[in-house]
Amino acid sequence: MPDRLVISIDAMGGDHGPAVIVPAVARAAKIMPPDSVRFLLHGEGSVVEGALNTAALRTPRLAGLCEVRPSIGVIAMDAKPAHAMRRGNGTSMWNAVESVRAGEAHAAVSAGNTGALMAISRLLLRMAGGMDRPALVANWPTSRGVTSVLDVGANIICDAERLVEFAIMGAAFHRAVHKTPRPTLGLLNVGVETEKGHEDVRGADRLLREHAFDLDYRGFVEGDDIARGAVDVIVTDGFTGNVALKTAEGLARFFRTELRNALTSGAASRLGALIARRSLRQMSERLDPGSINGGPFLGLNGIVVKSHGGADARGFANAIRLAADLAHSDIAAEIERDLRKRASPEPGAAPGQPGPQDATQQRASA
Amino acid sequence: MPDRLVISIDAMGGDHGPAVIVPAVARAAKIMPPDSVRFLLHGEGSVVEGALNTAALRTPRLAGLCEVRPSIGVIAMDAKPAHAMRRGNGTSMWNAVESVRAGEAHAAVSAGNTGALMAISRLLLRMAGGMDRPALVANWPTSRGVTSVLDVGANIICDAERLVEFAIMGAAFHRAVHKTPRPTLGLLNVGVETEKGHEDVRGADRLLREHAFDLDYRGFVEGDDIARGAVDVIVTDGFTGNVALKTAEGLARFFRTELRNALTSGAASRLGALIARRSLRQMSERLDPGSINGGPFLGLNGIVVKSHGGADARGFANAIRLAADLAHSDIAAEIERDLRKRASPEPGAAPGQPGPQDATQQRASA
Repeated sequence: MPDRLVISIDAMGGDHGPAVIVPAVARAAKIMPPDSVRFLLHGEGSVVEGALNTAALRTPRLAGLCEVRPSIGVIAMDAKPAHAMRRGNGTSMWNAVESVRAGEAHAAVSAGNTGALMAISRLLLRMAGGMDRPALVANWPTSRGVTSVLDVGANIICDAERLVEFAIMGAAFHRAVHKTPRPTLGLLNVGVETEKGHEDVRGADRLLREHAFDLDYRGFVEGDDIARGAVDVIVTDGFTGNVALKTAEGLARFFRTELRNALTSGAASRLGALIARRSLRQMSERLDPGSINGGPFLGLNGIVVKSHGGADARGFANAIRLAADLAHSDIAAEIERDLRKRASPEPGAAPGQPGPQDATQQRASA
Repeated sequence: MPDRLVISIDAMGGDHGPAVIVPAVARAAKIMPPDSVRFLLHGEGSVVEGALNTAALRTPRLAGLCEVRPSIGVIAMDAKPAHAMRRGNGTSMWNAVESVRAGEAHAAVSAGNTGALMAISRLLLRMAGGMDRPALVANWPTSRGVTSVLDVGANIICDAERLVEFAIMGAAFHRAVHKTPRPTLGLLNVGVETEKGHEDVRGADRLLREHAFDLDYRGFVEGDDIARGAVDVIVTDGFTGNVALKTAEGLARFFRTELRNALTSGAASRLGALIARRSLRQMSERLDPGSINGGPFLGLNGIVVKSHGGADARGFANAIRLAADLAHSDIAAEIERDLRKRASPEPGAAPGQPGPQDATQQRASA
């Protein structure tokens, strides 16, 4: 655990660039203990310097915490990942990740193009433990707090072993960020009985039950268990997770619009809304799965956090804090330790499908 | 189109049985034109007669519209489908479907066990057009009206051809029930670009573009397009559809709870809530994807509509009305006509993957 964190920031990424990102850095610096963190700000020198000078008027100590690292060019929000990999060298996003690879920073944060950030992160940092692609985590508000849902879009097709990797990474993530010592874990399915669903979720269920992972695995959960907060971590393939997340974000938006309409539909309602305004606004903000900003890419040899492209300063500051929590944790060691257990069931644990059918064992011995 | 509809009712199904289902029949009879419909009520003779006598006190003409068909036994809400198929003969659910098979009724409605109803319907009615399993439709409230989403749970694994069948059936369903002459149609995916998603959705996208189906196909849509009402019909596999639907139902429930809490959290809020109560209640009811009751099983040789097990009289009456709309429509002929087009692309249309790769053509020529 480093004494003083260094966080590398893509100051040009996102819909707003330095005008929002630099104030977000100032905000993050204020909520973290003094002298606990420094920032590398990657971006067009004069633009970032300008934003920094403006922000320093309100937060004088900011200048001493930030080092501007001039870069050339910005990866467009609609650029293809392959293009970003070929042509992105030297841009603010590339350099933000490169600082982590070079050991100059403990984590990188960007609000830029998701596909490009993932491609550049894989290229520069490489995946840990023989994994293939990073998993994207959503921090989903529930009636009991926050549930971590992964993968929400990076891995479209996931076999049983991949889902088990998500379980291991999701538990380590939740412990690091939400401070739950032993997060509970569920596999998203269309029913809770063991025979429900397709072969991949059933296979992952068997592996999670039969291998002695240090996980509090509770079996299958269904879609309505997400908002209920039935478990701390919900594991699913990136296709299903992405659809579920966007469906919920769309419904939350619909809800806000309808709430506004319902409360302006007559004199009585308008008066009621005026009176109850504050609690209604707080509530509708709290419900949106998009309201908690900052999604890490898990599985890389290094910490990279993706912020929403449209995040405001408060949202981007939250993504920075999440990166700091991860950098302060032992997440990499925890993940590696549990990944190793894929290959070695505890003595006495019933083997799932021994022999060549068991992809986990096959892979570990390869 | 029959002059006088006959609708077969499983009077014992659901959480409440005849005490709710018979009043629901009375309610449905009131909102339909006089002499346009008759009902066959399947269930334990004395129990159904008793409920009918009670309901007839408020709706005297009900007795003349209903014929009680005594049956023995009820399929439990947690019975396995295989058990229901082996042992269900003679129960109220079985007999309700059998009336459709025998040509005595134009449609059947049940609030009983979903898996059992599907298994019995497949067994007695058989699938149309060489299809394998029925598709379940959700009527999803959106900011523009109602979107039909299918499949929401019956078909866990769906290849491209199956998704095309859902598109054909979903469009015919939406036209029949929601009276949209030419429903727009989208395929649920994790992005709108053609290269997004897995092979099955990409394959279905190609088939829908290249075959000259009489469909207003708009390409890929994402999860947040559901609540937005971006298209009238959204097609997906049963795994993704089930998770999306339950996620949204869970979120809608969470909204209602939070809304109640926000509005009782202080004197000002309580006063506001009191004033705005009616519009808030209407709104939170309107938003729940579970609020529009009645999900048909599409693809059978006959009309079977599943009601929520916990539906109240108003909800079950809505499922009856939906069954009547389907019975009045040409849905079966429309589906059959479009299914035939799977095999014969219009002259001039570019063939997708000609030769043995094209599952559609292969199957039609088999």
